Amino acid sequence: MAKHDVRLDLCFSALGDPTRRRIVQRLARSEASVSELAAPHDMALPSFMEHLKKLEAASLVTSRKQGRTRICALAPDAFAPVRDWLTEQAEIWEGRLDRFDDYVLNLTRERGNETGPED
Amino acid sequence: MAKHDVRLDLCFSALGDPTRRRIVQRLARSEASVSELAAPHDMALPSFMEHLKKLEAASLVTSRKQGRTRICALAPDAFAPVRDWLTEQAEIWEGRLDRFDDYVLNLTRERGNETGPED
Repeated sequence: MAKHDVRLDLCFSALGDPTRRRIVQRLARSEASVSELAAPHDMALPSFMEHLKKLEAASLVTSRKQGRTRICALAPDAFAPVRDWLTEQAEIWEGRLDRFDDYVLNLTRERGNETGPED
Repeated sequence: MAKHDVRLDLCFSALGDPTRRRIVQRLARSEASVSELAAPHDMALPSFMEHLKKLEAASLVTSRKQGRTRICALAPDAFAPVRDWLTEQAEIWEGRLDRFDDYVLNLTRERGNETGPED
C-alpha cells in the first residue's frame, strides 16, 4: 500500500468519531492545552489522550510542551490529503456527467437530423 | 448526538479503508455490478459484501437489482456532508488567520505611530 494511502486511512478514520471531530473543531478556532481540550468531554483523561493520539498519528493535530503544559494545535494543511482525494473523485464523477450531457446532446442532434429541421 | 453527526461518523469511517476507497474510485467512473466491483479485490465475497454494506450505510453508494444482478452506483452528492464539514472547519481556521493578519497589521501601525512617521 502506498504511503499516501496510509495517511488517508488514518485521516478519514480519525475524523469518523464525534469526539475527535469536536477536538478538531475546537482547534480550528485556536490552539489549546490538553486540559482545556478535555474539559468539555465527559471522559477519563487516558481515553481522551487516546483520541488525541489518533489525531496526531493522522497528522491532523500537532502538540508541543510549554513548561509543564502540552499545547495542541491544528496542523497546517491538516485536511489537504482528504480534500485532495475527495476533489479527485468529484472531478472524475463530474467529467462523467459532462460526457453524459455530450452524449444526450449528440443523440438529440442525430435525431433532429433524422427527422429533418423543424421549420 | 445529532442525526447529521451519525452520517459523518459513517462517511468518514467508511472512507478510512483502502478497499472501500477503491470501490468509490471505481464507481466515480461508472456504475458496476457487484461481481465487476469485486473482481480486482483478492477477497472472499462475504468480506467484500461487508465493505459494500458499510458504503451503503454511509449513503455513499446505492444499489438496485437488475434481473439477477445487483448494480451499484455512487450516490448523488455522496461527499456533500464530508466536504461541508471540512469547508466549515477550514473557514473557521482561515478566518482566524485573517484575524491574526489584522492583529499584526494593527500592531505594526501602532508601533509606527509610537515612533512617529518615518519621513
